[in-house]
Amino acid sequence: MKSNQITVEISDNRKEKPAFSSLQFGKTFTDHMFVMDYTEDQGWHHPRIVPYQPITLDPAATIFHYGQTVFEGLKAYLSENEEVFLFRPEENIKRLNRSCERLCIPQVDEEIALEALQKLVDIDREWIPNVEGMALYIRPFIISTEPNLDVTPSKSYTFMIILSPVGAFYKEGINPVKIAVEQEYVRAVRGGTGNAKTAGNYAGAMLAQKQSGKSGYSQVLWLDGKENKYIEEVGSMNVFFKINGEVVTPELSGSILEGITRKSVIELLKHWNVPVSERKISIDDIYDAYKNGQLEEAFGTGTAAVISPIGELFWKSEKLIINDGKTGELAKKIYDALTGIQTGKVEDPFGWRVTVQ
Amino acid sequence: MKSNQITVEISDNRKEKPAFSSLQFGKTFTDHMFVMDYTEDQGWHHPRIVPYQPITLDPAATIFHYGQTVFEGLKAYLSENEEVFLFRPEENIKRLNRSCERLCIPQVDEEIALEALQKLVDIDREWIPNVEGMALYIRPFIISTEPNLDVTPSKSYTFMIILSPVGAFYKEGINPVKIAVEQEYVRAVRGGTGNAKTAGNYAGAMLAQKQSGKSGYSQVLWLDGKENKYIEEVGSMNVFFKINGEVVTPELSGSILEGITRKSVIELLKHWNVPVSERKISIDDIYDAYKNGQLEEAFGTGTAAVISPIGELFWKSEKLIINDGKTGELAKKIYDALTGIQTGKVEDPFGWRVTVQ
Ligand SMILES: Cc1ncc(COP(=O)(O)O)c(C=O)c1O
Ligand SMILES: Cc1ncc(COP(=O)(O)O)c(C=O)c1O
Repeated sequence: MKSNQITVEISDNRKEKPAFSSLQFGKTFTDHMFVMDYTEDQGWHHPRIVPYQPITLDPAATIFHYGQTVFEGLKAYLSENEEVFLFRPEENIKRLNRSCERLCIPQVDEEIALEALQKLVDIDREWIPNVEGMALYIRPFIISTEPNLDVTPSKSYTFMIILSPVGAFYKEGINPVKIAVEQEYVRAVRGGTGNAKTAGNYAGAMLAQKQSGKSGYSQVLWLDGKENKYIEEVGSMNVFFKINGEVVTPELSGSILEGITRKSVIELLKHWNVPVSERKISIDDIYDAYKNGQLEEAFGTGTAAVISPIGELFWKSEKLIINDGKTGELAKKIYDALTGIQTGKVEDPFGWRVTVQ
Repeated sequence: MKSNQITVEISDNRKEKPAFSSLQFGKTFTDHMFVMDYTEDQGWHHPRIVPYQPITLDPAATIFHYGQTVFEGLKAYLSENEEVFLFRPEENIKRLNRSCERLCIPQVDEEIALEALQKLVDIDREWIPNVEGMALYIRPFIISTEPNLDVTPSKSYTFMIILSPVGAFYKEGINPVKIAVEQEYVRAVRGGTGNAKTAGNYAGAMLAQKQSGKSGYSQVLWLDGKENKYIEEVGSMNVFFKINGEVVTPELSGSILEGITRKSVIELLKHWNVPVSERKISIDDIYDAYKNGQLEEAFGTGTAAVISPIGELFWKSEKLIINDGKTGELAKKIYDALTGIQTGKVEDPFGWRVTVQ
């Protein structure tokens, strides 16, 4: 496998770059992509960087019917002096492989995947917006390609990486969002696929999202599928609460995604000697803390927004206004620290930053 | 919409038909397929039958990332005097539309979908095996096609129908299977997508299937996701038990698929005045009935096998042998009645059979 050299075919038909200021998330793609194939007899083979181009598949390919697929999401950042950084990319590749296991997809070689990531970002580095808060979103994904309507793991797969320049999540800096606690729909349950980054989890979440959107909420806060009372996560973010000086986040229950931002926030807080714990948190705990005046902050964590303060939580028929609907001090401090490390503005005592050369 | 005429382009490159005796499920496809597109401004449009051919999509198409997709499965049968029959196809189209609702996919016009089904089967009718027990499997499906990495319903979709001649599910007639009760993994939970026919449910089920397969079990029996005690369904089948003269099947809990075979079996039993009820059934109820000698039969129901008797149920460390591991009398009677109606061998008092002309 390691002898597999990544070949490169440079596009001779470069696209025009959009005005970075008007970028919408995930709608613009760069000039190249990475592709690698899997077959039973050859394993993963033929890693290559080629011009960004359509995929052609048999209509019976299992991806279209049984959704055997996994993906990842991370970003490349441009520093003030034009260096390109990735943030803990090895964690994404490890998580990709854990997702593969759950979905019966053959795992990829971590070294090849990391090399592919770096090489591709390097080739398309001029697509990284040189604007504060913007970045190049990186989407590795694997799809099952065998034409077969039998419900059984595919015998062939394609691993791809595509890149998309993305705007600042907050147009005017970090800003609180309103979140509705979901009472009808469930994202995942222990024993299901909730801790894997796989398509079905996201398709299933759209209806609740759409309905809460109609009432003016940007995302839903999912409760656990068994008892509908323990807090899980938000859309594409893990969630943290600051209650009476202590920071708490739901423990990894098997049904929530192990966010890399979540992990980094926990490590950062420990480094700062801020009390932080991972445990079961019921929505009633949050409500009680709110009523007692102890719910000091709430925020989501994820690659897209890094830190997303929660200014309002809608639960049953009540609006819990947190920290006067403003960004909390701690949320802001974490945001500055993480984005500082990501873009090379501050020291990185943890060794999280990887330079693309 | 109804003015939308289905156009037909006949393939001038017909494939050679395989030896029907050696067919594996879902690996051989016919000469044509149906395609229809959806865009926000035109709605569903351009319905057409074209030669079977690959699909070309942008690598950022949401189907590859967020799995917004639904599908159906039914069969066309050839009668002894070469008539072609479908079994309750309108039920499949209705279920497709219910699945669409859950997955935020725009529903299709039932009349166009039914016309498409019939027209396509008619054009490829010589692909229906003229062998007892064989049929033409029909797979309608919808995929989301917009290139967009934002987790939001796609703005464009493609609806397709492909056809696959399939062998007899039981090479030597109806035969009991061994099923393991799943204790670790969960297929679906109330509030999730279990009652929709969507890819993610099947991807998530593969790992449990694979593991039970290693121990010699052909499928797993899923328990509910909340309490891990109520019986849900089996792989691609609903499940029935005959206990002390009464036939019971799990009620539609919101997390199991509303099988069309299930519905037909219930209607058939009522027609025969056999006591049948839909209710919550715990695995302990089944175990108790077994211990008391009252568990007379168990069988799965689904389009693929029609009726699949369960000869052994593995639960914790015990093997429950049902009806001496043989096909039960009632299972056989239902099987004969349903396949008789499907293939035109017996009267159809229910009006379930639809002739393709
Ligand atoms: C469901 C879900 N939870 C949490 C996260 C946050 O994970 P990370 O911090 O690794 O981006 C994401 C996004 O990746 C996600 O999709
Ligand atoms: C999960 C699941 N349950 C049950 C069934 C049985 O449904 P039907 O009788 O409509 O084929 C199927 C197959 O279609 C299925 O996929």
